[in-house]
Amino acid sequence: MNSKLENLWEEVRELSLGTTPQIDRLHTPPTPLQFLRHYLSQNKPFILSASAATTLQWPATTLWTSTSYLLNTLSSSTVSLHLTPTGQADSLTPHPSNPDSLCFASAHVQSTSFSDAIDAIKASRKNDSSKGFVAYAQQQNDCFREEYGALARDCDSHIPWATEAIGGLPEAVNLWIGNDLSETSFHKDHYENLYAVVTGEKHFLLLPPTDVHRMYIREYPAAQYTYSEESEEFELKLENPERYVPWCSVNPYPLPKDKEKEISKFPFYYNGPKPFEVTLKAGEILYLPSMWFHHVRQTPDNRGLTIAVNYWYDMQFDIKYAYFNFLQSLSFCKPRLNDGDSFINENLSNGDKNHKEE
Amino acid sequence: MNSKLENLWEEVRELSLGTTPQIDRLHTPPTPLQFLRHYLSQNKPFILSASAATTLQWPATTLWTSTSYLLNTLSSSTVSLHLTPTGQADSLTPHPSNPDSLCFASAHVQSTSFSDAIDAIKASRKNDSSKGFVAYAQQQNDCFREEYGALARDCDSHIPWATEAIGGLPEAVNLWIGNDLSETSFHKDHYENLYAVVTGEKHFLLLPPTDVHRMYIREYPAAQYTYSEESEEFELKLENPERYVPWCSVNPYPLPKDKEKEISKFPFYYNGPKPFEVTLKAGEILYLPSMWFHHVRQTPDNRGLTIAVNYWYDMQFDIKYAYFNFLQSLSFCKPRLNDGDSFINENLSNGDKNHKEE
Repeated sequence: MNSKLENLWEEVRELSLGTTPQIDRLHTPPTPLQFLRHYLSQNKPFILSASAATTLQWPATTLWTSTSYLLNTLSSSTVSLHLTPTGQADSLTPHPSNPDSLCFASAHVQSTSFSDAIDAIKASRKNDSSKGFVAYAQQQNDCFREEYGALARDCDSHIPWATEAIGGLPEAVNLWIGNDLSETSFHKDHYENLYAVVTGEKHFLLLPPTDVHRMYIREYPAAQYTYSEESEEFELKLENPERYVPWCSVNPYPLPKDKEKEISKFPFYYNGPKPFEVTLKAGEILYLPSMWFHHVRQTPDNRGLTIAVNYWYDMQFDIKYAYFNFLQSLSFCKPRLNDGDSFINENLSNGDKNHKEE
Repeated sequence: MNSKLENLWEEVRELSLGTTPQIDRLHTPPTPLQFLRHYLSQNKPFILSASAATTLQWPATTLWTSTSYLLNTLSSSTVSLHLTPTGQADSLTPHPSNPDSLCFASAHVQSTSFSDAIDAIKASRKNDSSKGFVAYAQQQNDCFREEYGALARDCDSHIPWATEAIGGLPEAVNLWIGNDLSETSFHKDHYENLYAVVTGEKHFLLLPPTDVHRMYIREYPAAQYTYSEESEEFELKLENPERYVPWCSVNPYPLPKDKEKEISKFPFYYNGPKPFEVTLKAGEILYLPSMWFHHVRQTPDNRGLTIAVNYWYDMQFDIKYAYFNFLQSLSFCKPRLNDGDSFINENLSNGDKNHKEE
């Protein structure tokens, strides 16, 4: 009956995380000791309110609401723009040569001037009728301090209480400029993440690492979109040589017509405890602990943009990580084949071994 | 082949604890942040050298080497003395009515003047020929601040860097006065433990909570020794009503004649990674993380006494604890019955549910 895994999902909530979809909200910044003791050590998320003032003193809070300020400041910058037909980058999509199966599709990435990037984000529309694209300015390679270096003085270069607690500066700081069409599918990162929204809102669904089996992580062949400006069409091609990516199979927002089928495919996601739900508003910071599964959608500001900065700090690969890897190595029994409490061996992903984000 | 559990034992050592039987040794006290970041959050032990001076300034370090100081200071104190035939209290011993099976035997505890307690400890000899006893002055109920209150000013009332990191004073401080005949069998406590040796030496064997299956925790009927001063004999009686105690089955120091049999009974203990070994000398402090299995022996000072003080701080029942309970709920397959990677359901202990030490 898989009851032991179900007990684990419940116990971590009863002991530590809480049994509602809400997470802790702090109205003053934690001290480094409080952050370590109550959150980082416990692998437990929280929201820091805008009133806590960590971000209130950032020039970005006021300056970035002006698109002309951004355009002027970045007038000579080249940025990475991610293009996809539907706003779903790094996500599962029908396999190009076998539409009955899925592949893991990465965006078409192009270097462009910042003003062209803003135009593209504003011109985004879903490619439902074979034309159109969704653009998302982001690159998870420390882009805030690189491509967007001209904006760097507008935010703190790190989150002081996190830096002191962790004992080092962020490994990477990333900037994200998108709109409501872009969506990030469930995944986890091997970093401690401090995520600050500057304009607009971000909507997170969060599941703790103990819920790994509820994500149905499977290996999918990696594929890449290529966008042709001339034809305004995308081509999706498998990577060559072939590469497999372990990825979460669950889409938490299926179309109504697909809902029944999704529930029957992913019963442990749909029948288990509800994910934690966070709407992060401008000025708020989310502590998203390492190894937590997260799905992200966004609501734009009145210009049509959502802008966020996130700080990735190195995580500790300690006993929690060893427990996680062990847990992930176990498989659910198929409920219909076996109603005992056995775990069966399945050739699950080794994708974690490289200690990097999926 | 139970390879997943074996991988867990190895991985926690490779990632975090180290692959030798040694643990970290610090020569200056950690700051509260360092203690939280590198040890408490990671559930990782360390030794603080005597040179780190935390204990050097304790009056106990010099005063307690004088037995007459102790006798004078405690001249009006009544203390709890634990008497056993062989020095093994809270340990497995042949069942009184069925010597082919084992029970969990607790010491005869008597209240006595401190000077009688010291006499008894010094007169201890193993009851091999039906006479004699081993005495150990200890009581894990905050005895240092209660029974031994007259000595309390000789040590710090708490460990400052631990108190600041944990955010609260110790829940209990215990004093231990014994000699080389007393031994504490493998067990774990639901506390963060700071263990300071004042005179003599303590020898610990340590296993992380991830190794729980290597301890072969089973339910044993609880029994109690009663000692008669008149006959100088012990009687061992099962508790009434019957009570079962989950306890570690492994004795790490079997008699040579029993060694082969022990290895065949507890192969995962004997064939897995070696326990961490710590000899804690006078003035040294061990951070013994919550949920770690520990076995303790001692070497007395030149008077024949080992004196130690330990500080129990509340632990966090967080994701690590949930992972541990899940892990413990799984059972090894019996290697001879099943050579797949299955886990079978066994009715394992629920003894952890009370959040107290075994």
